[in-house]
Amino acid sequence: MPSYTAPTSDTRFILQDVLQLEKYGHLPIFAAADAELIETIVEEAGKFCSEVIAPLNPVSDREGCTRHADGSVTTPTGFPEAYAQYCESGWGTLALPEEFGGQGMPHILATVVEEYMNSACHAFNMFPGLTHGAVSAILEKGSDTQKATYLPNLVSGEWLGTMALTEPQCGTDLGMIRTRAVPQEDGSFSITGTKIFISGGEQDLTDNIIHLVLAKTPDAPEGSRGISLFIVPKFLVNADGSLGERNPATCGSIEEKMGVHGSSTCLMNFDSAKGWLLGEENKGLAAMFIMMNAARLSCGNQGLGQAVLSYQNAAAYALDRRQGRAMGERADSSAVADPIIVHADVRRMLMDARGFIEGFRALILWCSLQLDLAHGAETEEERAKADAMVSFLTPVLKGFGTDRGFQTAVNMQQVLGGHGYVAEWGLEQCVRDARVAMIYEGANGVQAMDLAGRKLARDEGKVAESYFSLIQSECDAASAELDFIAVPLAEAVCDLRETAQWLVKNAGVHPDNLGAGSFAFMQLVGVVSVGFMWLRIAEAAKSKLDADEGDRTFYEAKLTIAHHYAERGLAEVPMLKRQAQCGAENLMKLSLEDFEIMG
Amino acid sequence: MPSYTAPTSDTRFILQDVLQLEKYGHLPIFAAADAELIETIVEEAGKFCSEVIAPLNPVSDREGCTRHADGSVTTPTGFPEAYAQYCESGWGTLALPEEFGGQGMPHILATVVEEYMNSACHAFNMFPGLTHGAVSAILEKGSDTQKATYLPNLVSGEWLGTMALTEPQCGTDLGMIRTRAVPQEDGSFSITGTKIFISGGEQDLTDNIIHLVLAKTPDAPEGSRGISLFIVPKFLVNADGSLGERNPATCGSIEEKMGVHGSSTCLMNFDSAKGWLLGEENKGLAAMFIMMNAARLSCGNQGLGQAVLSYQNAAAYALDRRQGRAMGERADSSAVADPIIVHADVRRMLMDARGFIEGFRALILWCSLQLDLAHGAETEEERAKADAMVSFLTPVLKGFGTDRGFQTAVNMQQVLGGHGYVAEWGLEQCVRDARVAMIYEGANGVQAMDLAGRKLARDEGKVAESYFSLIQSECDAASAELDFIAVPLAEAVCDLRETAQWLVKNAGVHPDNLGAGSFAFMQLVGVVSVGFMWLRIAEAAKSKLDADEGDRTFYEAKLTIAHHYAERGLAEVPMLKRQAQCGAENLMKLSLEDFEIMG
Repeated sequence: MPSYTAPTSDTRFILQDVLQLEKYGHLPIFAAADAELIETIVEEAGKFCSEVIAPLNPVSDREGCTRHADGSVTTPTGFPEAYAQYCESGWGTLALPEEFGGQGMPHILATVVEEYMNSACHAFNMFPGLTHGAVSAILEKGSDTQKATYLPNLVSGEWLGTMALTEPQCGTDLGMIRTRAVPQEDGSFSITGTKIFISGGEQDLTDNIIHLVLAKTPDAPEGSRGISLFIVPKFLVNADGSLGERNPATCGSIEEKMGVHGSSTCLMNFDSAKGWLLGEENKGLAAMFIMMNAARLSCGNQGLGQAVLSYQNAAAYALDRRQGRAMGERADSSAVADPIIVHADVRRMLMDARGFIEGFRALILWCSLQLDLAHGAETEEERAKADAMVSFLTPVLKGFGTDRGFQTAVNMQQVLGGHGYVAEWGLEQCVRDARVAMIYEGANGVQAMDLAGRKLARDEGKVAESYFSLIQSECDAASAELDFIAVPLAEAVCDLRETAQWLVKNAGVHPDNLGAGSFAFMQLVGVVSVGFMWLRIAEAAKSKLDADEGDRTFYEAKLTIAHHYAERGLAEVPMLKRQAQCGAENLMKLSLEDFEIMG
Repeated sequence: MPSYTAPTSDTRFILQDVLQLEKYGHLPIFAAADAELIETIVEEAGKFCSEVIAPLNPVSDREGCTRHADGSVTTPTGFPEAYAQYCESGWGTLALPEEFGGQGMPHILATVVEEYMNSACHAFNMFPGLTHGAVSAILEKGSDTQKATYLPNLVSGEWLGTMALTEPQCGTDLGMIRTRAVPQEDGSFSITGTKIFISGGEQDLTDNIIHLVLAKTPDAPEGSRGISLFIVPKFLVNADGSLGERNPATCGSIEEKMGVHGSSTCLMNFDSAKGWLLGEENKGLAAMFIMMNAARLSCGNQGLGQAVLSYQNAAAYALDRRQGRAMGERADSSAVADPIIVHADVRRMLMDARGFIEGFRALILWCSLQLDLAHGAETEEERAKADAMVSFLTPVLKGFGTDRGFQTAVNMQQVLGGHGYVAEWGLEQCVRDARVAMIYEGANGVQAMDLAGRKLARDEGKVAESYFSLIQSECDAASAELDFIAVPLAEAVCDLRETAQWLVKNAGVHPDNLGAGSFAFMQLVGVVSVGFMWLRIAEAAKSKLDADEGDRTFYEAKLTIAHHYAERGLAEVPMLKRQAQCGAENLMKLSLEDFEIMG
């Protein structure tokens, strides 16, 4: 059975030493969270996830969810009790507004807890995770009545929410939805249609479920400019807040899938269900994107969470499993064999994992800090800058983070050899669970187009350029002792800038040139961004070592992994640059018939 | 449900036009297989795999194997009947010696059939697949009595074989096995021990199972120089060939694993089972490697098989699924959406798959041809040269082939978005099934060390150099119209040569430098080798086009994919070169404690 211990020391190092949160202590958004409180929250969250949530993970995979003949769904053993404890401890409400019962803490803290939850049990965390998206959408687009009716119970976790977007005939292209919303005399709408892949569409954790449903009103324009978002509760809510009539929003089946078996993936039938318009009619896509952006950042965190869980178990195995002998001097020549961690190739896999994990953790926390600053920085300029940065990097966190999270899980499984392939050790579950995050909330190819198209090309690369300049300036300012990373990173940023410019220019020649290079470009931004974070980590570690503060081995290990990332991680840059600049011409040459079954 | 059609046109193109098999028609080894017969076998094998075997694949995944209280094992519905048909049609005996009932055809034909079998149902093909290894070992090391007793029934498929090597405490490091073999007065040995991960250790397809078991005799030297290989039949064989006593070689449990559920992965208890030494005492490792080398080439073919199956289904989905609109001109502006194949990024994934599949198919067939020439070429020099080439490339076929086969399955799953993650479409099964081939028969990291250590460094790069020169000379000789691939391939070979030289040189400085670069080196050899095949494919396609023979669109598509591979596939070369030459110093810096749980 896999084990999990929350990496709280690394989290604290990033918050305190790399991101230097105390610099932001004067901002109201950080008022509720002083250094001591942050430390307590990190430690307590780590304990809760390791002790209460992690044991659910293997059970949830084996048992999965069960749909009964009446359409009700049972979640795995232990989920309802653990969920009650999660709500009671307030782990889901950290960054939600105090007005509706939240704790008003910065997002960066919620991101920390979310990482631990994802490592401990990805499937479990999907239930509250998606609810955060629903809360954001209602907060931003809801009427006062809607806020009062739904937010307190969604924030407290008394109710859970869903995002009901996908239909059998459409996923990415939501303009094609067929679910209908017919206005009723009382101001509500009658919603009819079938939605698929609805995570948590039915469950036994909460008394009520608030579905946010995309549908079309009768005279809506065609395509994505004609879709609206509706609040459709499982049970209607009476004026006094008590639960009323059962709405005909029912689970028709649950999917059999590769992993995250503990999360119920439902086909939902809305059969003249009562719903209320959220935000403006035909502006549903914008409202949906509020949910979606929150979900995308969370997805990146799922990639990180799976990478951490799989690393911890692979490292423990590599330290314990004796097989073969060291190629150099043997630590213990009397033993028949050495632990496999002596082999350079095993270390390569483990250190690649560390390079991703610790660098990406810093990146996602830095982006979460930008999210906080986008709301709470002192000047409008700072707020706008932070907001633009989060917006630019969100598809990278999602697309790159989930890709590399999965790849890390696959590599960690490899460390265990045959034991990685059997269920007993849990690594194969990590791989199956991690896989989904590359697909849902916008498949990674869609993230890449969001980055290269909307985020890069549409503003002609201005936000990107300010990000590249930031990295460049920190490379220039780095002390000579950090040349081992600052020099290759500076080169990498030049390659990245050149690639961005190439894409902006050639998007004008033909928009397919964007699509042809978008995926490699997203990976390139990810690789360089993680390198950027390693520069900062190395700076922070060096300061600590220079000042002779704290645990030297911890900081020395950081420099070693920074070095590893600089020589091996950044080695991807020339490849990605070349692939991003290939253009579409050759890709578009094959006819449809050429793609048909070979031979 | 996934569908599969054997890619027989591509196979025939490679055999006839790329490898030009007719050039070898004068060799006795090809006597049994003229062009017409080859064509018939390819077509009939394709039909058999598509129609009889492929329907078993989803069923076998759902049902898996069942062990009963008495230790017997039931394979999935349809396996016994299909296996009987497989034997009857002789698909397993193509390249086996006529002396024992085989058909004496070249290996290259067996490799073709194996690819189709792997695509159709990987789990099913593991049963006969491993038996081929047992046959090779008995053929080469068995006494005349052993050959007469076991080979006819193993060749015909009447019995199946296993490779019983791994034990709970050892996999890669077989010197650590604990299974004991005590000599008996009648010349047999009494075998006692526990073996794990034994594919087909128990099954209901055949009346008898011939286990090849690694064990240690009482006074054996320590480590791998003290292990011997034994023939341990499930039922002893009487002098008249009838089955005798049940040997105490029993299945204690079967593993729950990520995929290939149709293959029974058994824990086998040998409890004073009767066995006979195969080959010399204490020379078991050499005998084992005969089996293993056959298995490794077959593993590469499993990677290919899964890549093909997943490509076919992803391409069909991409041609059918309408979602979003083309970025350029739309083929059909009246439709709400275009098939997703119009998107450059979807094409990138599909064409990457084609680049691997068609190039690697040529590579594995070329290597199989070398295997045939190693036995049947005219001069000793040619035979030795072919043998050295197969030996050098075997770890690449296994390590690179299974890695890229898995990666291709993952990418093809991505093409289907959410539908790739649910069981219904079969893509997630491809990913789970493909994963195992990177692990068994020597994990891919072990393949990389075999390549960089045994194959490269021990002969100081001589075989490698002759391979690189071959590629170089074909680049030099290529016509100017093929510069688009010949030029980058020639550069890539220079990088590869330089990397090989670096490894040979730095292995002398410290052997860990090999381990530190071995994995990237193996990938590099793989990437360049597939590029080499694309050059040959492009040459063959160009000849056909120049001569205006056959289906122009088929050959034009080949040139387009060759172009794709040249610009995107070979783009990996600078990265792999850099990673292979990093050396071990930084990798070996972290202490064991540094690898312990982070935080």
